[in-house]
Amino acid sequence: MLNQKYVDMLSKKSVIRQLSEFATARGKEIGYENVFDYSLGNPSVPVAPEFTEGLIELLAKEDPMKLHGYSPSLGIPEVKEAIAASLKERFGLPYTADCIFPTSAAAAAIAHAVRCVTVPGDEVLTFAPYFPEYNPYINDSGAVLKVVPPQTEDFQINFDEFLRMLNPKTMAVLINTPNNPTGIAYSDATLKKLAKILSEKQEEYGHDIFLISDEPYREIVFDGAKCVSASTYYDNSIMCYSFSKSLSLPGERIGYIAVNPNCKDAAKMVNMCGQISRGIGHNCPTSLLQLGIARVLDKTSDLSVYETNMNLIYNELIDLEFTVVKPGGTFYIFPKALEDDAKVFCEKALKYDLILVPADSFGCPGYFRMAYCIDTEKVKRSLPALRKFVETEYPNR
Amino acid sequence: MLNQKYVDMLSKKSVIRQLSEFATARGKEIGYENVFDYSLGNPSVPVAPEFTEGLIELLAKEDPMKLHGYSPSLGIPEVKEAIAASLKERFGLPYTADCIFPTSAAAAAIAHAVRCVTVPGDEVLTFAPYFPEYNPYINDSGAVLKVVPPQTEDFQINFDEFLRMLNPKTMAVLINTPNNPTGIAYSDATLKKLAKILSEKQEEYGHDIFLISDEPYREIVFDGAKCVSASTYYDNSIMCYSFSKSLSLPGERIGYIAVNPNCKDAAKMVNMCGQISRGIGHNCPTSLLQLGIARVLDKTSDLSVYETNMNLIYNELIDLEFTVVKPGGTFYIFPKALEDDAKVFCEKALKYDLILVPADSFGCPGYFRMAYCIDTEKVKRSLPALRKFVETEYPNR
Repeated sequence: MLNQKYVDMLSKKSVIRQLSEFATARGKEIGYENVFDYSLGNPSVPVAPEFTEGLIELLAKEDPMKLHGYSPSLGIPEVKEAIAASLKERFGLPYTADCIFPTSAAAAAIAHAVRCVTVPGDEVLTFAPYFPEYNPYINDSGAVLKVVPPQTEDFQINFDEFLRMLNPKTMAVLINTPNNPTGIAYSDATLKKLAKILSEKQEEYGHDIFLISDEPYREIVFDGAKCVSASTYYDNSIMCYSFSKSLSLPGERIGYIAVNPNCKDAAKMVNMCGQISRGIGHNCPTSLLQLGIARVLDKTSDLSVYETNMNLIYNELIDLEFTVVKPGGTFYIFPKALEDDAKVFCEKALKYDLILVPADSFGCPGYFRMAYCIDTEKVKRSLPALRKFVETEYPNR
Repeated sequence: MLNQKYVDMLSKKSVIRQLSEFATARGKEIGYENVFDYSLGNPSVPVAPEFTEGLIELLAKEDPMKLHGYSPSLGIPEVKEAIAASLKERFGLPYTADCIFPTSAAAAAIAHAVRCVTVPGDEVLTFAPYFPEYNPYINDSGAVLKVVPPQTEDFQINFDEFLRMLNPKTMAVLINTPNNPTGIAYSDATLKKLAKILSEKQEEYGHDIFLISDEPYREIVFDGAKCVSASTYYDNSIMCYSFSKSLSLPGERIGYIAVNPNCKDAAKMVNMCGQISRGIGHNCPTSLLQLGIARVLDKTSDLSVYETNMNLIYNELIDLEFTVVKPGGTFYIFPKALEDDAKVFCEKALKYDLILVPADSFGCPGYFRMAYCIDTEKVKRSLPALRKFVETEYPNR
């Protein structure tokens, strides 16, 4: 008998995926270059060449039995050491290999982190708007995801609502900065206030509250901003990292958990992650990718195109009098729709071959997301279509 | 607060791993070449060169954005098609891409299969001796693993015990042939009888019973035997495959689920696996490995060394009057220990630098496993040590 829990999930198709499929189908009719597809967060710049060169060298020169052999269940020691050294250098905390657990990108990192610090029935708080895949990662563990309403003026944390929702069942808080879908990076003030509240609530409730920090967009920051790791502001924190965006390797499923070295249980939690992996048949990421990534930890793809695209789109949106907060990073922007129902708004945009994603499933109805990880040339060609859409469909606003 | 379920798992160290660690430590004292390490099932022959050449070509020539892009959540279509075509050709069933779900090797395949066809509290039957990692794969899903006692004369299925243990809560039966740890392949008669019983019990209980077939050793068969897939004998079956052993790629975590195309829910089950993956943050295996493996589906490493090693060891064991069934495949052999407590027996063997694994954790006390995936030259050097161990410790048996 099939497990009905997973059968039921089949009927809930992702809006993003449906729109992406529409874009592909429309592309077959009119040429994909004419579809202004802002649906998917798929990097649009190639991986740093050093990564490819490194992998080819490993394949050509390394003993294949060593190269393709089992990874220890907690990760390849020299890879963990290299990651720890890089984090220590960049963020100034005393990371060691014992704090590091290589994972199949941020998805696995978050899924492991949640299982590590919650039991079924515990609550995990996150902040709207949020990445909808947090639902399956957390629901499947048995913990309960609770969503703090957004602060739409600036998309920083709505602390009043947060304080109202924190309770003794809150075992973890999940943040994502710079944020998908808003593109907003939390300010220093936001991160410090969050850490202060969590510290106080730990004391009050008499148990740890872990901060799970989803950081795949950490390196994609604009306007010369410093690359920050939100997880370094609070001792009981778990950094969930992926090379998917910074190195344009989304299909290679490679990332890591780094438990804050000032967390008293860091090494124990890494060991627990090994056991969580066993149970789900996950084990470690591939040996080849672990070794390949260890050689390019401080490299990124050329990420400048995202800021170029953001400025083009942001300026046009402002000119068209959209309500929108200027992104501080990522490759997303998150304007308010021009009517209450963003689904209707995005449906109308399809007539202009503009693929925009309504934000209902991100926990922020009335807004929409544009993923501008596409060629700048296409961004430029899309702007007249955006203008035509707005002027035709909303002439009297 | 840390999840105690995973904390508790930390104290249960794998016997195999402990022995392997002992072997490594002892190797540092006397040189690893002098430690007769039969502990780990780690392939000892290199990957087929076509695999390495194929990966290098992909890295050197393919568009990096395409090569490293997201895999669709059910796997890369052309990879699934290639796997289906290969299985159809080899095993004569009408496999299509819709039956195939690429996984992070057999561990993930089994973990997904169990979640697909059971709910917490359901029973999964397997046959002793069995691979101890089945415990975490199944326990973590909430299903209950029940172990049918062994038939030690030939290590085929003990059908009397099996029939006694089958009951309406049995939703799946998990087999592994050729088998770790015995090296025995189930006969045609065994597989047909198993299929007949399962068909009858489905009818009697009024629900499906799925056969989950763990087949990583399928290609390592001896004495000119035909490579068989046990999952082709029964419609409601799920093949769990890994390239870890046949291509010596254990660290690359690449394999697949192939649902029998005659199973009425095959395509639905593959879709469900996509949802199971989402929940555990697993997603698909890496794009690079999926594409790389698709080019060498019908290749293997040079596996002949395992039969050479088996014959050397088997003949010596027979000469030393061990009770042992001759393996039909794999790189394991499974003799009876020379005293009731195999742990004591294996402990004594350590004095002779022989690393043997007692089979208590495989559900078959009194036996031990030797993993002879080591150099033939070392196997030859180990035989005098084995003889000395037996003659010194058990002079009067």
